[in-house]
Amino acid sequence: MSQLRIPGPTPLPPQVLQSMSKQMINHRGSEYHTMLRSITENLKTLYQTQNDLFVLTGSGTGGLEAAVVNMLSPGDAVLGVSIGVFGDRIAAIARAFGAKVVPLNFEMGKAADPEAVRKALKANPDIKAVMITHNETSTGITNDLEALSKVVREFDKLLIADCVSSLGSLKCPVDEWGLDVAISGSQKGWMAPPGLAFVSVSKKGWEFYKNAKMARFYWDFGSAKKYLEKDENPWTPAVTSIYALSAGLDILMKEGLPNIVARHARVGKACREGIKSLGLKQVADEKYASNTVTAVWLPQGIEYKAISKGMRDEKDITITGGQGALDGKIFRIGHLGWVDEKDIKECIDTLRIVLSKLGFKK
Amino acid sequence: MSQLRIPGPTPLPPQVLQSMSKQMINHRGSEYHTMLRSITENLKTLYQTQNDLFVLTGSGTGGLEAAVVNMLSPGDAVLGVSIGVFGDRIAAIARAFGAKVVPLNFEMGKAADPEAVRKALKANPDIKAVMITHNETSTGITNDLEALSKVVREFDKLLIADCVSSLGSLKCPVDEWGLDVAISGSQKGWMAPPGLAFVSVSKKGWEFYKNAKMARFYWDFGSAKKYLEKDENPWTPAVTSIYALSAGLDILMKEGLPNIVARHARVGKACREGIKSLGLKQVADEKYASNTVTAVWLPQGIEYKAISKGMRDEKDITITGGQGALDGKIFRIGHLGWVDEKDIKECIDTLRIVLSKLGFKK
Repeated sequence: MSQLRIPGPTPLPPQVLQSMSKQMINHRGSEYHTMLRSITENLKTLYQTQNDLFVLTGSGTGGLEAAVVNMLSPGDAVLGVSIGVFGDRIAAIARAFGAKVVPLNFEMGKAADPEAVRKALKANPDIKAVMITHNETSTGITNDLEALSKVVREFDKLLIADCVSSLGSLKCPVDEWGLDVAISGSQKGWMAPPGLAFVSVSKKGWEFYKNAKMARFYWDFGSAKKYLEKDENPWTPAVTSIYALSAGLDILMKEGLPNIVARHARVGKACREGIKSLGLKQVADEKYASNTVTAVWLPQGIEYKAISKGMRDEKDITITGGQGALDGKIFRIGHLGWVDEKDIKECIDTLRIVLSKLGFKK
Repeated sequence: MSQLRIPGPTPLPPQVLQSMSKQMINHRGSEYHTMLRSITENLKTLYQTQNDLFVLTGSGTGGLEAAVVNMLSPGDAVLGVSIGVFGDRIAAIARAFGAKVVPLNFEMGKAADPEAVRKALKANPDIKAVMITHNETSTGITNDLEALSKVVREFDKLLIADCVSSLGSLKCPVDEWGLDVAISGSQKGWMAPPGLAFVSVSKKGWEFYKNAKMARFYWDFGSAKKYLEKDENPWTPAVTSIYALSAGLDILMKEGLPNIVARHARVGKACREGIKSLGLKQVADEKYASNTVTAVWLPQGIEYKAISKGMRDEKDITITGGQGALDGKIFRIGHLGWVDEKDIKECIDTLRIVLSKLGFKK
């Protein structure tokens, strides 16, 4: 069987695939109301939050844009903590809408240092909000969001957390950690196809919303809240993706959050140990290595394309390459969503064959 | 069989439903590239355009927002021609992003008058762009976009055309009529589920883009163009909806544009004649009555909810009510996408039974 081992879209379980062949329904009718209510409740359970939570029709990047434009005003100073492509992306969004982004960039493969965040907040008292990526897909790093959020709360700043590739896979208790806006995307841990973004908004988030002057219409949280009161979305939602999300959440709720997190911990560990056993080196500092995606340095003299073609030819396994500055230097294996240890074992076994055919010696 | 007779989402043909149970693929891989290339070509054929055309992940309203923010700068004067809810909506979007909207509103049920547009453009020489709804879903009116666009071209203004519920169903030759930005949505005539918006951009549109200062990131046409050069989207697209759109377009391309337009003309006429035969009155001026949706005044003493429940109970047919000022005053029947005359006959026959049970006498 073919295997998609990229960090999203992720493979879908048969129940989810089947759910999408259901005929369209009215998105302003009672059947949809029931479905959206249940989806919202399940997402809140898995987010571990009592905050408002909205399902938006758009990519994860749309969710990031929604978070920015609903919280900030042009001219606002924000701390943009970045450890890779996705930290850079939310900073670029904030800049595009007129925020003054104070960048706090860390070396590729390293996690964000809470002490550095503390220093930056001390040095820039005008900063209103902090943007942090929980799990950086481009390098395979999971930031210590618990420690980082403590620092942000010390200074009583708003915390916008990009949890696109962590929520629903990794430990991320939104309320306990005080994440004011937490964004995720359907194609990551949620066993659903791409096309839906999720955002939770805390009480403090709503206070920011009241004063936020960035231009917005489609992503407006006020409209989302008003319509959610009648279990609807302001604009016509991606109904098929809603079917799929509903089916994916049913599976996740049955498994239960502790089991989901433990499964990702097992597959993450299996992937990293496998990589090591092949004589390859991961990009991430082991202490912060992500349980949803592993980035691996290309062995000397072997190109990404050769490995990726080999994996496809050998077992129809799809891996992915590096983004931005890491393009041509690394490959990445996704292990989130509908995945277990035997999938990772197959991936590593195939990689062993492919590397050997390419002349790689440990 | 249940029937969804609302103006989107529209029922999906079996081939389209089946297409969505296909496993996820890499949105940066060759299979996706081939699919997006073919979709884009087919959409351009049905748009009758040589302009650039992008598929965006979002609702139709997202497509409207995309058109506005890529073309205009805050402070720009734009003429917002409105004959109902959707004309008001694009005006609200432009206002939200800082445009100076000069409203040109027409009475509910009437089409926009080209002479009035001419007068407004004469009276307001600072107007840079004109926004017009081709087919107004809230009242069941199709504007004479050909005549309106001629006026806009006389004054050499940019024309942003909301063709969400017309393109792919009604005659709308984008290049011939000089529509600079033409927006549509997957859940309308395209035999696909909601969640994708389409936008075409003319040469003149790109000139406006260069100077457009409204804040944007997710919807940026420049990013869309750059990625489309490699048959990709900037952000993770709704892959399942792309499968469906591809299958829907295959059906439409086989039918051919003249047949599609003729079929909608037949079902539109059948619906209006049916309504008349029941002794009911349509909202639209017959000369501009839409072939994709018919809005009908509620008969005196009969509530929308009674008719809508009756239709559901009798034959599992879903109709919809009025929006905005027409809420509680009308009901609407959608007839676009996967629809033929027998569907409309069944709808009218059921309406006859329901009305009779509710005590309505012609």
